[in-house]
Amino acid sequence: MKLDSFSEDAILRKIAYGAGLSSKKHASQSPLLLGIGDDAALFQPLPGYQTVLTCDWFLEGTHFLRGKHRPGSVGWKCLARAVSDVAAMGAKPRCFLLSLALPSSLTGPWLDGFLRGLRRASRKFQCVLAGGDTTRCAQILIDVTVVGEVQKRCALLRSGARPGDLLYVSGRLGEAELGLRLLKERKGLANPQDSLLRKHLYPEPRLALAQWLAAKRLVTAMMDISDGLSSDLPRLCAASGVGARLEAPKIPCIKTPAHLRRIGTDSLELALHGGDDYELLFTLPPHRKYLLPRSFRGVPLTEIGIITTKKRVVLVDENSREHPLPACGWDPFRS
Amino acid sequence: MKLDSFSEDAILRKIAYGAGLSSKKHASQSPLLLGIGDDAALFQPLPGYQTVLTCDWFLEGTHFLRGKHRPGSVGWKCLARAVSDVAAMGAKPRCFLLSLALPSSLTGPWLDGFLRGLRRASRKFQCVLAGGDTTRCAQILIDVTVVGEVQKRCALLRSGARPGDLLYVSGRLGEAELGLRLLKERKGLANPQDSLLRKHLYPEPRLALAQWLAAKRLVTAMMDISDGLSSDLPRLCAASGVGARLEAPKIPCIKTPAHLRRIGTDSLELALHGGDDYELLFTLPPHRKYLLPRSFRGVPLTEIGIITTKKRVVLVDENSREHPLPACGWDPFRS
Repeated sequence: MKLDSFSEDAILRKIAYGAGLSSKKHASQSPLLLGIGDDAALFQPLPGYQTVLTCDWFLEGTHFLRGKHRPGSVGWKCLARAVSDVAAMGAKPRCFLLSLALPSSLTGPWLDGFLRGLRRASRKFQCVLAGGDTTRCAQILIDVTVVGEVQKRCALLRSGARPGDLLYVSGRLGEAELGLRLLKERKGLANPQDSLLRKHLYPEPRLALAQWLAAKRLVTAMMDISDGLSSDLPRLCAASGVGARLEAPKIPCIKTPAHLRRIGTDSLELALHGGDDYELLFTLPPHRKYLLPRSFRGVPLTEIGIITTKKRVVLVDENSREHPLPACGWDPFRS
Repeated sequence: MKLDSFSEDAILRKIAYGAGLSSKKHASQSPLLLGIGDDAALFQPLPGYQTVLTCDWFLEGTHFLRGKHRPGSVGWKCLARAVSDVAAMGAKPRCFLLSLALPSSLTGPWLDGFLRGLRRASRKFQCVLAGGDTTRCAQILIDVTVVGEVQKRCALLRSGARPGDLLYVSGRLGEAELGLRLLKERKGLANPQDSLLRKHLYPEPRLALAQWLAAKRLVTAMMDISDGLSSDLPRLCAASGVGARLEAPKIPCIKTPAHLRRIGTDSLELALHGGDDYELLFTLPPHRKYLLPRSFRGVPLTEIGIITTKKRVVLVDENSREHPLPACGWDPFRS
């Protein structure tokens, strides 16, 4: 259905249906007392838990390109990005609100594809659609609000890092940025089967790892890396009132394909400044180091540096020389 | 401060400060355990309460015009609209998330004015800023998510109206639409002192009335009128599986200025199809009628019709003739 006479109510019904809200299986696991269709949604908080709230823009032209990114990937990623912020607190996502603005011409197959991707993400992350708002706009605008829950006093904040704590990162860094560069280089829509594009198109927030770290109380500070290590690490340091020494040779980089190395794509640069990885950055006191496994469910956990008293972030190269690390990750107001 | 090198972090600090989050008085009343500055906000739900969630687009070009609406009114109204949805459930607003996208050139005085209006609304509605997301965009994009709370089993839904229930509306209808028409007619920015523009520029959600109605358990169904009576009443009827007979002579209209009457602006048309009034539409069984005052804190409460078994909405004129009532209120996908 794609019509000029398409009404906001009809689009809301399509979204409610397309997001699998009508599925009974989904509904039985839902924390919602009331979903789409009233003035607001009603959510039943768990006793003994705190509510985690976050929202994330996902705008055509800024965060994705209509001619490059398939609607299914847009649907998946808009939710995955916001869920990653909930993961970074050690919390469980529960439900989300979708604010969607799009041209009337995209209320047919494009919207269907978008909702398929969104539904897959919603099931994978166990985060149900609670409501939202739709309107018409020449450009596709998406804003996702995720509501999560975490047990009282278990939320992992950015502000708990102390001098001497060890700095860790999950997974490998730079892979999503590499995917974005490959996508820009190629013509037309992205091939969702291409493994090099996978992390850029379908990022997976580290929910299980984050919840495990929160439950084990190993970690002093945590955040997700969404804008790039060089931009996000200073935020963790600022919140904690500390600095950090980052050891370049220890940073888990990806292997850059040969033809990209030739045009100057450097793995360390990708790992330091590339965004969209949604890996976890966290600190733990040295005496808890032996409690942390080398990997968690196949995701490597790598020590990459140490928290310092001096309030600056330095990068130590393979010859033990120190370099200041400028924040060169993604910033919409600078790029 | 307005700079090309303006960073997202600097804008977030300005928003946190500008929204009065740094005020200690504000913080002591806050339900927030953690506000702006981490991956997500942390909110402490009240025991015995349910959480109400809603979000609302407020887009330049669609919902406001940069050349007509002052930034202070944009800041006030973007929050007031979303708070009205929480009011319509009989709930209390607690906190909100602000997603804001704007051009770098507006991060100076425009943003300051916007934040002043937002702060006034935030204080008036006792709804604190919990977090948000900012990015750059050529057009001003705003999406506000409001989190509210309501006692268990006290939320007022759209779905409870029963045949024979009386239909009521708060305040007068059409005033905001009249303000919009006057604003469009005139040149330049709106004068915030103009009383005819007041309801369009600075709408006030009916929080006290809605909470009183919820506490007294008088009402069977309730919603706010945001798109216009002719669009919103059918939604209440559809959710309740009923119809309605609306009596035209009873609808509380505004007095249209003489020069507008001459060009064909009709008070009843404004009241039926004008949007943005944020008045409450509610139903109550006839035997509870004597419990409802004629006005609440100066806001008239007017009986305008009755709920029927036949699933359609009809308008009855002063000669008792019935007319079908087409939904001619605001719909972004139709207009």
